[in-house]
Amino acid sequence: MESIKNIAIQVLALTDPKPCKCGGDHQVCLNCRVCRANEEDKLATDFNHLAQYIDHTILKPEATQEAVSSLCQEADYYLTKSVCVNPAYVKFAHDHLSQVLTCSVVGFPLSNSVTETIISETSQAIKDGAKEIDMVIKVNWLKDKEYADILTEITEISQTCENNGAILKVIFENCLLTQEEIIIAALLAKKAGAEFIKTSTGFNKSGASTEDVALMRRVVGPKLGVKAAGGIRDRQTALAMLKAGANRIGASATVAILKDEYED
Amino acid sequence: MESIKNIAIQVLALTDPKPCKCGGDHQVCLNCRVCRANEEDKLATDFNHLAQYIDHTILKPEATQEAVSSLCQEADYYLTKSVCVNPAYVKFAHDHLSQVLTCSVVGFPLSNSVTETIISETSQAIKDGAKEIDMVIKVNWLKDKEYADILTEITEISQTCENNGAILKVIFENCLLTQEEIIIAALLAKKAGAEFIKTSTGFNKSGASTEDVALMRRVVGPKLGVKAAGGIRDRQTALAMLKAGANRIGASATVAILKDEYED
Repeated sequence: MESIKNIAIQVLALTDPKPCKCGGDHQVCLNCRVCRANEEDKLATDFNHLAQYIDHTILKPEATQEAVSSLCQEADYYLTKSVCVNPAYVKFAHDHLSQVLTCSVVGFPLSNSVTETIISETSQAIKDGAKEIDMVIKVNWLKDKEYADILTEITEISQTCENNGAILKVIFENCLLTQEEIIIAALLAKKAGAEFIKTSTGFNKSGASTEDVALMRRVVGPKLGVKAAGGIRDRQTALAMLKAGANRIGASATVAILKDEYED
Repeated sequence: MESIKNIAIQVLALTDPKPCKCGGDHQVCLNCRVCRANEEDKLATDFNHLAQYIDHTILKPEATQEAVSSLCQEADYYLTKSVCVNPAYVKFAHDHLSQVLTCSVVGFPLSNSVTETIISETSQAIKDGAKEIDMVIKVNWLKDKEYADILTEITEISQTCENNGAILKVIFENCLLTQEEIIIAALLAKKAGAEFIKTSTGFNKSGASTEDVALMRRVVGPKLGVKAAGGIRDRQTALAMLKAGANRIGASATVAILKDEYED
């Protein structure tokens, strides 16, 4: 495989590559829409209080109001970073939370909608109370090497978030991607201005792996967020993800993950 | 379980139930938004030419332009009823077809968007060339018995289709539903004005079963469409679905299904 630096130079057609200041393994400046070089490092450091890193999540289509209400109570009790719900549940969740952020997925889980639909869904979710938005990259565009289209779509959604006071995470669905495609996705999401890159939707063949998390962290460097999601059901797995480079965990099994910590 | 008639009376709060004229096993008039009692029966009758009943389908997120282009060529060659694609591929598919309709899924596969998003996605898909729209019922609303909300959402999307010259199919995701919930979903979709009810997205635990298809056909009677989708990969299964009461098949394995017919 090409070096990450060479992939960056080719994918972004950098004719006069300059060194970057953000510590990413791409090494060359991507001229990101939002330069984060002077921001603090986004690495998990406190392995004794995992709740602060967790998006407490319920996304299955059969989730009742009672289930989402319980999710919100658990999130407020454990003080997770956010609850992550479907767009149609954002208002309900926001109304049921007192201390925790609401995160909404959009264009989820297939990113099968046209960009305008995803932007309108993003605006509505933020209006309904979401402070974090988890979009999905168009895997078919990655396969078809439509990098300019990917950059445009993520940039537009990222700007919609920024203009309305929310942050953006970009989900890759790593189980469908080659290592090189994961690197390209990370470079494009970073350049477009996203705050986080995220491993998986949890709705495809498999979820987060420590190898993929480590690769994603290497590509983007310490200044961007990396969220591991999909199949994280116990404290040991959550810790492994954080130690591999994640600073956010998406999980439905939050109570199980945190139980050991509280019982110590 | 209650009789279908009694479920209809309870769910729709019919205080003075009148007999129906459409032959549905609900027996009482649902006062549907569009009465189809005088339309022709929608039953499959020609078991030697299955292509006319097939929505040739590709919905996986990694589907490349080449894959969708092949799908369209196959559909035009075999003269399937439609190709069924994601909203973001509707324009592309429509441009690549000469004789076959374009069908788009919307709010797919989780129906996790607010109604306004799904309506806007529906309008855009029709504008891009879709003549058939496959929406997904909100399973959580069924579980929470929010029947009025379901009726309103399907009615609004159905009207959007009708006003723009398209027809609507409502997907139930039967694998998540009880028999009674399937009956209720069928009654609500019929009352709301949908042209078809459909078994499954193909993205959950399991797809169409002949038992569910037979139940759906019993509930709605002969005047509505019933589409079986999910896991139909050979001629024998497709035939079994049609004989159980389906008059439309959603399948990716269309070529395999039709091969036997062409080789006879």
